[in-house]
Amino acid sequence: MSTKDPVRIEQLNWMEYEARMKEQQPVVFIPVGALEQHGPHLPMNCDELIPREISEDVARTINGLVAPSLNYGYKSQPRTGGGNHFPGTTSLSAEAMILSVRDVVMEFARHGARRLVLMDGHSENTMFIIEGIDLALRELFRDGITDMKILRIGYYEFTSASTEKVVWPDGFPSWPLEHAGVMETSVMLYRRPDLVDMTKLATDVPAQFPPYDVYPVTFENLPTLPRSGALNSAKLATAEKGKLMFNEYVSGIALAVTDEFGLGKKLK
Amino acid sequence: MSTKDPVRIEQLNWMEYEARMKEQQPVVFIPVGALEQHGPHLPMNCDELIPREISEDVARTINGLVAPSLNYGYKSQPRTGGGNHFPGTTSLSAEAMILSVRDVVMEFARHGARRLVLMDGHSENTMFIIEGIDLALRELFRDGITDMKILRIGYYEFTSASTEKVVWPDGFPSWPLEHAGVMETSVMLYRRPDLVDMTKLATDVPAQFPPYDVYPVTFENLPTLPRSGALNSAKLATAEKGKLMFNEYVSGIALAVTDEFGLGKKLK
Amino acid sequence: MSTKDPVRIEQLNWMEYEARMKEQQPVVFIPVGALEQHGPHLPMNCDELIPREISEDVARTINGLVAPSLNYGYKSQPRTGGGNHFPGTTSLSAEAMILSVRDVVMEFARHGARRLVLMDGHSENTMFIIEGIDLALRELFRDGITDMKILRIGYYEFTSASTEKVVWPDGFPSWPLEHAGVMETSVMLYRRPDLVDMTKLATDVPAQFPPYDVYPVTFENLPTLPRSGALNSAKLATAEKGKLMFNEYVSGIALAVTDEFGLGKKLK
Amino acid sequence: MSTKDPVRIEQLNWMEYEARMKEQQPVVFIPVGALEQHGPHLPMNCDELIPREISEDVARTINGLVAPSLNYGYKSQPRTGGGNHFPGTTSLSAEAMILSVRDVVMEFARHGARRLVLMDGHSENTMFIIEGIDLALRELFRDGITDMKILRIGYYEFTSASTEKVVWPDGFPSWPLEHAGVMETSVMLYRRPDLVDMTKLATDVPAQFPPYDVYPVTFENLPTLPRSGALNSAKLATAEKGKLMFNEYVSGIALAVTDEFGLGKKLK
Amino acid sequence: MSTKDPVRIEQLNWMEYEARMKEQQPVVFIPVGALEQHGPHLPMNCDELIPREISEDVARTINGLVAPSLNYGYKSQPRTGGGNHFPGTTSLSAEAMILSVRDVVMEFARHGARRLVLMDGHSENTMFIIEGIDLALRELFRDGITDMKILRIGYYEFTSASTEKVVWPDGFPSWPLEHAGVMETSVMLYRRPDLVDMTKLATDVPAQFPPYDVYPVTFENLPTLPRSGALNSAKLATAEKGKLMFNEYVSGIALAVTDEFGLGKKLK
Amino acid sequence: MSTKDPVRIEQLNWMEYEARMKEQQPVVFIPVGALEQHGPHLPMNCDELIPREISEDVARTINGLVAPSLNYGYKSQPRTGGGNHFPGTTSLSAEAMILSVRDVVMEFARHGARRLVLMDGHSENTMFIIEGIDLALRELFRDGITDMKILRIGYYEFTSASTEKVVWPDGFPSWPLEHAGVMETSVMLYRRPDLVDMTKLATDVPAQFPPYDVYPVTFENLPTLPRSGALNSAKLATAEKGKLMFNEYVSGIALAVTDEFGLGKKLK
Repeated sequence: MSTKDPVRIEQLNWMEYEARMKEQQPVVFIPVGALEQHGPHLPMNCDELIPREISEDVARTINGLVAPSLNYGYKSQPRTGGGNHFPGTTSLSAEAMILSVRDVVMEFARHGARRLVLMDGHSENTMFIIEGIDLALRELFRDGITDMKILRIGYYEFTSASTEKVVWPDGFPSWPLEHAGVMETSVMLYRRPDLVDMTKLATDVPAQFPPYDVYPVTFENLPTLPRSGALNSAKLATAEKGKLMFNEYVSGIALAVTDEFGLGKKLK
Repeated sequence: MSTKDPVRIEQLNWMEYEARMKEQQPVVFIPVGALEQHGPHLPMNCDELIPREISEDVARTINGLVAPSLNYGYKSQPRTGGGNHFPGTTSLSAEAMILSVRDVVMEFARHGARRLVLMDGHSENTMFIIEGIDLALRELFRDGITDMKILRIGYYEFTSASTEKVVWPDGFPSWPLEHAGVMETSVMLYRRPDLVDMTKLATDVPAQFPPYDVYPVTFENLPTLPRSGALNSAKLATAEKGKLMFNEYVSGIALAVTDEFGLGKKLK
Repeated sequence: MSTKDPVRIEQLNWMEYEARMKEQQPVVFIPVGALEQHGPHLPMNCDELIPREISEDVARTINGLVAPSLNYGYKSQPRTGGGNHFPGTTSLSAEAMILSVRDVVMEFARHGARRLVLMDGHSENTMFIIEGIDLALRELFRDGITDMKILRIGYYEFTSASTEKVVWPDGFPSWPLEHAGVMETSVMLYRRPDLVDMTKLATDVPAQFPPYDVYPVTFENLPTLPRSGALNSAKLATAEKGKLMFNEYVSGIALAVTDEFGLGKKLK
Repeated sequence: MSTKDPVRIEQLNWMEYEARMKEQQPVVFIPVGALEQHGPHLPMNCDELIPREISEDVARTINGLVAPSLNYGYKSQPRTGGGNHFPGTTSLSAEAMILSVRDVVMEFARHGARRLVLMDGHSENTMFIIEGIDLALRELFRDGITDMKILRIGYYEFTSASTEKVVWPDGFPSWPLEHAGVMETSVMLYRRPDLVDMTKLATDVPAQFPPYDVYPVTFENLPTLPRSGALNSAKLATAEKGKLMFNEYVSGIALAVTDEFGLGKKLK
Repeated sequence: MSTKDPVRIEQLNWMEYEARMKEQQPVVFIPVGALEQHGPHLPMNCDELIPREISEDVARTINGLVAPSLNYGYKSQPRTGGGNHFPGTTSLSAEAMILSVRDVVMEFARHGARRLVLMDGHSENTMFIIEGIDLALRELFRDGITDMKILRIGYYEFTSASTEKVVWPDGFPSWPLEHAGVMETSVMLYRRPDLVDMTKLATDVPAQFPPYDVYPVTFENLPTLPRSGALNSAKLATAEKGKLMFNEYVSGIALAVTDEFGLGKKLK
Repeated sequence: MSTKDPVRIEQLNWMEYEARMKEQQPVVFIPVGALEQHGPHLPMNCDELIPREISEDVARTINGLVAPSLNYGYKSQPRTGGGNHFPGTTSLSAEAMILSVRDVVMEFARHGARRLVLMDGHSENTMFIIEGIDLALRELFRDGITDMKILRIGYYEFTSASTEKVVWPDGFPSWPLEHAGVMETSVMLYRRPDLVDMTKLATDVPAQFPPYDVYPVTFENLPTLPRSGALNSAKLATAEKGKLMFNEYVSGIALAVTDEFGLGKKLK
């Protein structure tokens, strides 16, 4: 049976939210995801589910709040997500992404939030989140709100060197190549094994790419692009590795957020 | 423990999705919500949760699919949602809404979907969803895709006269006044009682409005606007009424969708 | 022979206008119309002519000013105006509407106007006028102009219950269904009988609509949409009813405007 | 008493309009105006009234139709209209202008119109009308409509050399300097003497401008800008000159339009 | 061998630039060009090269700085540049032009620049530069920057009457007709004779235009448009005339800029 | 003395250009740069100069053409360019970048070009170039142009492993950290030693960054950001290394372009 989750803003009523905002100045996490193919063995919500669940766990640790996700992300690119031509991948234009981020940031600022984290799970979003933040900060400055501080976090950047060695004993490929690879598969195995089918792992990986992009994105134009949509093998993925990484992301981000927003004294 | 839900697109992998799309031409439901205050007794996700859960149930009935929600909606208006000045209410600009709808519609068309339902839970969204659909259809027409059919549904419009009498024995107020009123409260009591607190019902209702709008929206400019954010009393709300209405919405919409998309023969 | 009309801004020279603006802080009315089919018996300017003439009469009463109309409105919708596919209906995109309203509001604010009324004659315009006003108020706030007050009025909302009974003795259908119906026809018969042809009343009405929208808008997709473009019968329309309603709108709006803008003491 | 004017689209019902469009392929004139100060002696509607009345007379001659005006134009510039800082001058942004023109052109094309004239009365509009036309033509081309022909006319360019000598016996100053000068004043004296006050002619003219623009536009930055808003003397203006010019514009434009659209054989 | 040019901003390092900006408040020139056909005898960069070289020479005189050019301009028009349908002519949309100007102006303001010159070489750019400046000034005002002064200069407007007589002994045609004519050819012969081929002068000139514009721009719709792309004969062009004009532009603009920005005392 | 460079489009006349386009279908290179601080020892044009000179050399090799640069790029980011708050760094908004790329790509397609290379020198541009290309390809597809092929190249990605070892004998830092580092400095020493001042090398490098972004970008919010603007030491830079890398970029890109566009047989 469902029970109310006090870190999820949308489950609060506005008076509870207002009280939290006024009394605690909580950090607000905004997960930014994607609906994107992740090979034959993973569901299409990895880029939303993982950063949202990390956000929730961090929020529980530091008494923060998590906003509803931006469920759709920017167009998938071949070298980082296989390309936007796959069925299922459902993306926004740059303009829609930028304005959505701008608007949501400005609204939380109106509520009194001054500490935001844009938690990104889809690397193609990065620059559009950045532009959305920049547009919002300019407008807010003109509104007299000059004390906002916003972090943009790609959670995977919190992987430590030691974890890297454990997870990829033969060497870390690269974050782009990790699309539907060991990291995402492991974390999904840890958090949502019901959504992973390890019997369907792609065999046409790893992808090989030239050092440039080709458009339009078609299999004809990109003959080395795996038809499976995965960019690297996930054979080495395990729920245990997923747990290791997930926890490292949560604790690393909790520490960074605590430090950046000066929350130290408020944490028990 | 979580288990994969086959009506939710984001829990499928792309190959499952592609197969469904090719073989069955399923109706794709896109819930369009809001993060909006709903008085002191309801959570802020009513406008997203209800249309999504209706979509899922309809999809189960007619073998359709449900896309991830557009979680944020257009700016709340005083006469239909209390106004956008409440803390917690988190809205998009017209442009962000319109472009997000346009983009998502075009993407599903690219996947091969020809039957879409924009399932709206927030009446302020209506015109922006319409513009988004119109922009998408124009572009798709230019792309040679001329066989799309799209429904825009405000689920509450499926309330029958007989249900109206049961739910509001003293007379139906009006849909705008029903913001955080008997219908939404009842449906939430039926679906997510953990998120409703009937001990906190607003007492400063019903709202009285002049027959025009005043801007900027402030309590000073709108002295009759309830401070609670609810527009009408939810005292008469019960889980039973919620069940009655929810089921009526599901069956009514399933019928309408079946009829509009000529699914009759495919249904048992 | 034409004679200068002192309530119409465009007939003043700028020095007269500036003096009025400085000395009297007049309410400025901005009619927002449409060029839209209104069935076989009405001209296509009803949605602009009526709110403009009401604005002029109200302005005469309260010493206000009327700006030139925004002659084109947002795309006509089936359930409120028959749909945008009729020849003659000539509409703007959301973006053009929103920006035009925003720009005009900001310009009057620059002139020193602080009391504006957006007088709407086309219900499809509502949300785009609202967004235009919101964008303008945000910018003006950043310019240090914080004392604007703006009303958005759909004149037909000023119909009293007693008038409703007189005009529709068998019961009021609904505002959407009133497109090219008794109200508009009556008012046009009162103000511009030369533009009404009561011998051509539509006979394929009233329209029957399902409780949702279907796109693209075609007669095939909307088989119950009257080919005439009217949504309800105007048989009961008379110039006398038109006079009753027109005068009620003028006096009701004059009162509301006087009250909202605190003009009481300035009126005789 | 008003009587229906069959050249004004908005006074037709849609079936009359559709019949005209199908049977006669009439030229549709779209007046594009401005609400702009025109010195102390002229009303602010010159840039809309004159091109609209010319359009109506031309339409009567060649069996064309006149659409409702775009009443607001692009920001007035010092060297052509005194600058946008005058009270009363009420202008649109580039984006609103461009999109409004684009939308209206596309709508008339949808109705079946293939011969359009954008009749401009405000030279600051020129480039934005051009962009609006270009955007519309690109979209229409993608819609398969490839036979549109559109003229953009600044009516004043139809002044003949012989008329120039009669109207400005001491030499023609230049079109920019003619803002609120002899031509506009004469035409207004001919068409709407009730709106002209020849006792208030500006005495601080002619304007002297450096060969470049200075921004922001303020009297401090443009010390030679006449405070009256007129750029040249209108002392020599007479209704007779106005008649001469107005008629020359009507006949010249009728001829050009007939020629460009190959209407010759259809004219009696 | 190349040597660093201290008037070109892009050749400075940022510390040199910052020092200049702080100590001298230099005038910053931003050349705005086009890539546009200029007949058979001239290269396509005339509209960028000439205003940039003038800017550099003026900057040397008054201790100013020159920013990198905006290399692409607005769509070429038949009566001023032959039309945008020529191969080679490569233009931006209105929106791209406006936003690029707005952004660059705002960035220089952020650096501390308060004296800008937009030096235009392509008359089609004029209104879009103006809109870009206006948008930037509005935003800057909201940022608290209220002391910007910006000149928009079309360099050719600095031609004196005496020069006109020397260059066009038989009478000056008009600036529009001068596209690829005597002025531009002469200046190019003076500055870059390697890019001019006087053996290829167009013989299908001068262009004859009706007093209006026709769209779409095709040779069929504009039968009098020279196929060569030149609008007037450049037979009388010489390097000497080019030198005369170029120097007049440099000295005239240096004087105007000195005067407008009150630089008098700082000049040696 | 200057002499015409036949690979630079802007130095051709339109007839030469048209002939080239028709007869040879040359690859068109569009350099996309930035005006961005590059530490105390480098000029601000590195990101434009280097990709343009590479483009020119590749074009000479494969008989291609080089278009004028887009001189301004997207806002500099701390971890890749120091941040946009430095004086001198002069950037465009996302919208201006995207639209400029879209427009230019569409224009070259109109001329008949089907093989384009967007040659990028500023990594912050990547995603906006991609969106511009995507928007252009969609529009072109609707125009019936379906055979475009476009490469987006970040030239630095063509560094071979062997070169990496020569240039950074102690290990390659990372491309982001290479902002104003050994690669750019070496290439500038090779191509434009007059613009490099090796006596001013930054000493506050290498930069240390947390694995996330912080906004707004200020030195207070990013205490580890080098005040010099350089992100890594350029001490090891030499003209020889620059030559090695520059030549590798030219030959690598020439090969890739030849291969991708099937130019093999046409090359000697």
